[in-house]
Amino acid sequence: MASTCLFCKIVKGAIPSFKVLETELSLAFLDVGPLSKGHAVALITLLNGLMEQLVIPKEHAQFMHQLSDESLADLMPVAKKVAKALNVANYNILQNNGRLAHQEVDHVHFHIIPKPNDTEGLGVGWPAKKADMDELKKLSEEVQARI
Amino acid sequence: MASTCLFCKIVKGAIPSFKVLETELSLAFLDVGPLSKGHAVALITLLNGLMEQLVIPKEHAQFMHQLSDESLADLMPVAKKVAKALNVANYNILQNNGRLAHQEVDHVHFHIIPKPNDTEGLGVGWPAKKADMDELKKLSEEVQARI
Repeated sequence: MASTCLFCKIVKGAIPSFKVLETELSLAFLDVGPLSKGHAVALITLLNGLMEQLVIPKEHAQFMHQLSDESLADLMPVAKKVAKALNVANYNILQNNGRLAHQEVDHVHFHIIPKPNDTEGLGVGWPAKKADMDELKKLSEEVQARI
Repeated sequence: MASTCLFCKIVKGAIPSFKVLETELSLAFLDVGPLSKGHAVALITLLNGLMEQLVIPKEHAQFMHQLSDESLADLMPVAKKVAKALNVANYNILQNNGRLAHQEVDHVHFHIIPKPNDTEGLGVGWPAKKADMDELKKLSEEVQARI
């Protein structure tokens, strides 16, 4: 628990939220945050009548790679139940680490974002580059050696 | 296993790949696919010298919500090890479900995408809309009722 963390406060119930599912280790809820003085104000993105959902670990960690395996293992089965309940054909799971990667709250959170059409939901930009096999081989060996 | 699935072939070793980590249930590798006749051709996106990594379940499922909890639980601990090995400050975890949501291979896969700067890596578009609290409450109850 981090005392200044918005999501830790939601886990503790100090800030109200619309919880949709809770386990011993994880919490799924709508992205609602307080603006001032305990008044919960909706910051939620509403996507074609279906809301973005958040799944978070109750354990506090800023980045995904800092979480315990136990907490990490609980998140996707929870996300699955929420995704099934959303009952949408297209959706993205997104988890951002670091400001450059669009992380806004410093507590690991997985977005579940319905994608009803081309314009609503997550916009995905994919600036692909090509690499040659020798370069790939070298880089994969470097990554492997660090695991 | 789906006999025509590119990623199932990679799991079986019928198509070569640059594996970086393997568990009983999951596989992490570089996004390399064959173009023709067994010749592995790099389709990888190279991002500032750091590659996009893929983490997949060995179990075949088209969408995240179709996977077994057992397979789902194994994926993020694997992604964590890969992310740590990448040793980057900023990165995104992305998992796409359905064509509209940019899914290109119909076997669940989590992208680990380094975000070295504003122009490289994943581009995130976030067309936010506001919702009022009554609407949120109603929608969250609907989702909750379906879990």
